[in-house]
Amino acid sequence: MELPSNRNCSIARSLSVLGQKWNLLIMREAHRGRTRYADFRRIGIPSDILATRLDALVEDGLLQRQPYQEPGQRVRDEYVLTEAGRDLLPVLAALTEWGDKHRPTGRGPTAIYVDEKSGDEVRLDFVPAGMPPAADAVRMAWGPGYDGPEPTS
Amino acid sequence: MELPSNRNCSIARSLSVLGQKWNLLIMREAHRGRTRYADFRRIGIPSDILATRLDALVEDGLLQRQPYQEPGQRVRDEYVLTEAGRDLLPVLAALTEWGDKHRPTGRGPTAIYVDEKSGDEVRLDFVPAGMPPAADAVRMAWGPGYDGPEPTS
Repeated sequence: MELPSNRNCSIARSLSVLGQKWNLLIMREAHRGRTRYADFRRIGIPSDILATRLDALVEDGLLQRQPYQEPGQRVRDEYVLTEAGRDLLPVLAALTEWGDKHRPTGRGPTAIYVDEKSGDEVRLDFVPAGMPPAADAVRMAWGPGYDGPEPTS
Repeated sequence: MELPSNRNCSIARSLSVLGQKWNLLIMREAHRGRTRYADFRRIGIPSDILATRLDALVEDGLLQRQPYQEPGQRVRDEYVLTEAGRDLLPVLAALTEWGDKHRPTGRGPTAIYVDEKSGDEVRLDFVPAGMPPAADAVRMAWGPGYDGPEPTS
């Protein structure tokens, strides 16, 4: 009996991590530039669950801890996207597009994607394989269909 | 305390389904045109686990059961991609590309994507949002880095 290769297991495990309740929202917040525990708490996630979720995302190599210190405060950790975490953006975009079609809110797309250099809106699609990459850097912004808690900034 | 919206829960749940060990391989086989229990068994998945996984994929609306009958045999079910299952192709493509970069086999891409009309290879990228869809239909083929069990056809 064959077992799935380690690599397929790795992808499946990362999927499993992404699929844990809240983790998708956490990774979306991370892609919106949030790094601090208090920022992630604002999405409504219970404190103990957030701690566990962040540990799992760090362990799976999607976020990394970096210490910081506000004046007069103790040293804390913030959670920064790793390269692997940043490279999940097309995965998040594809999932969002799938969700907008098959689990729609009725208020339009949840997230939009913007070319950082031009400011123009972009979307995911299949293109000829020989074409050079279209966008140097793409960032995610919340769209009209965003149905999570109100971001504070 | 706010809870994630039902919709985000739905996406997270589908992710969770995709992230169960074997489910990603099953969905890839489905995207390669496999529909029958025996086809899915050839990827090496234990029989009882396959039954459970197929149930979950049907329940989550990614596959649907359709009866068929070979001459002289009893009626069986085959498992056909739903529209939601077919629409997962960009998700699978994005995950495969992420895996090829961050969990490489060293033998090149696991899967390649082909425009069904032209036969040309395509890949996923961000494109200007106003552009018309690039490919009418894209299908998945195994690439040189494919590291699952040998397909029988």
